[in-house]
Amino acid sequence: MAGRTNSPGQTVSGRLLSVLDCFSVARPALTLSEVARHSGLPVSTARRLIGELCAWGGLERTADGRYRIGMRLWTIGSLAPRQRDLREAALPYMHDLFQATKENVQLVVEEGGRALCIEKISSSRAVPTRTEVGGRLPLHATGVGKAILAFSPHELLAEVVAPGLARLTPQTITEPGRLARALREVRTAGVAYSYEEMTLGAVSVAAPVTLLGSGVCAALGIVAHSHTVVDRLAPAVRTAALGISRSIA
Amino acid sequence: MAGRTNSPGQTVSGRLLSVLDCFSVARPALTLSEVARHSGLPVSTARRLIGELCAWGGLERTADGRYRIGMRLWTIGSLAPRQRDLREAALPYMHDLFQATKENVQLVVEEGGRALCIEKISSSRAVPTRTEVGGRLPLHATGVGKAILAFSPHELLAEVVAPGLARLTPQTITEPGRLARALREVRTAGVAYSYEEMTLGAVSVAAPVTLLGSGVCAALGIVAHSHTVVDRLAPAVRTAALGISRSIA
Repeated sequence: MAGRTNSPGQTVSGRLLSVLDCFSVARPALTLSEVARHSGLPVSTARRLIGELCAWGGLERTADGRYRIGMRLWTIGSLAPRQRDLREAALPYMHDLFQATKENVQLVVEEGGRALCIEKISSSRAVPTRTEVGGRLPLHATGVGKAILAFSPHELLAEVVAPGLARLTPQTITEPGRLARALREVRTAGVAYSYEEMTLGAVSVAAPVTLLGSGVCAALGIVAHSHTVVDRLAPAVRTAALGISRSIA
Repeated sequence: MAGRTNSPGQTVSGRLLSVLDCFSVARPALTLSEVARHSGLPVSTARRLIGELCAWGGLERTADGRYRIGMRLWTIGSLAPRQRDLREAALPYMHDLFQATKENVQLVVEEGGRALCIEKISSSRAVPTRTEVGGRLPLHATGVGKAILAFSPHELLAEVVAPGLARLTPQTITEPGRLARALREVRTAGVAYSYEEMTLGAVSVAAPVTLLGSGVCAALGIVAHSHTVVDRLAPAVRTAALGISRSIA
């Protein structure tokens, strides 16, 4: 097969993509040897692929000799219609919600069994959160995650439960039966809560964004200081999520 | 060289990247044969590379059999620090400016001799613009572009002028000497205007965002209906751009 090299099972293209896979919100800048280690590639191969990616604009070299994602990849990635169309529809509602509450407003989709943050609006007054655009959070511990889980096919819950539910704080629901019961409540109420289950000091309330005929496609949530009476924010979040759902219909 | 195939001068990785290069704001979804045509690759090669990109999550197949950019590329692209850090610093100021004016607010950087839109805030009431996040506009015809040109090294202006200044509307400045004079005025005033030079019916005002020690790194602009007294908005735009500059310092 063209492009296949000595290493069994991985094509040259696969190696290039494995270089990109080394980067994440937690690892935004890496040295050559870190790329080689995380990708499992020989240093010489990693060096060559990094060189090609830099020449193309997919990676950039920083002053301290590390590599980070370049503008070309951002430009191409920004075309992804799943986030683009959703974000376009959601942003006006997110601004309204932020304006009304001054709390962190987040929009997430499910991706690989986790909550992937598409967009967030924040202010210096809002509670610090662990959410970053492009970052992933566990579904079972977050309001947005539970809003998605509750309205998704049962297979997703099974996939999330299978490896065990990680304990992020003493409040995290780690028992599958309790999670299932919590999700039934979410379905009844139409909103999901997280009470310091992801981050101590922070509570969240979230509602599903649904696409007519194909179910839940995202979730909109607010994350606030734990002293906030978060139930009070539920109608606002639900209204905004319904607005987004209607807007993308 | 490992990874090099029969085609002279293009590695397998290069071919993979040329598949990605086919996609743009103007061409967000493409068929296999369109990818082959735009990339110059044989259909069989394009098919194989598309298959690898789909398996990885960099491309997605749509219901009508076309391909579009997938969430994995968006996630990785969102890490690009140049847009990420700037966007993070700019968004609060952009929200304020939008709140105060209800007009289109745009943040751009220079990339490849064009104005690349990093972020925009818009509303249904604002004038329709040709700006999309991830899209590129000519520097010489836009307020944001002129704000960048005016405060960049002279080489950038030379690069922009060299291929000739495209006429977008009857108002576009296409004469290099006139553009240079306009940029001198921008340097004096600290703000740049475009009077229907990009789009008939739309005017813009923009100010440079500067990074201490390394000059202009972006521009912030407002695009409004052409009946708007855009000078009135200049202090607000300039104030917000200075705020962003201070915030990233």
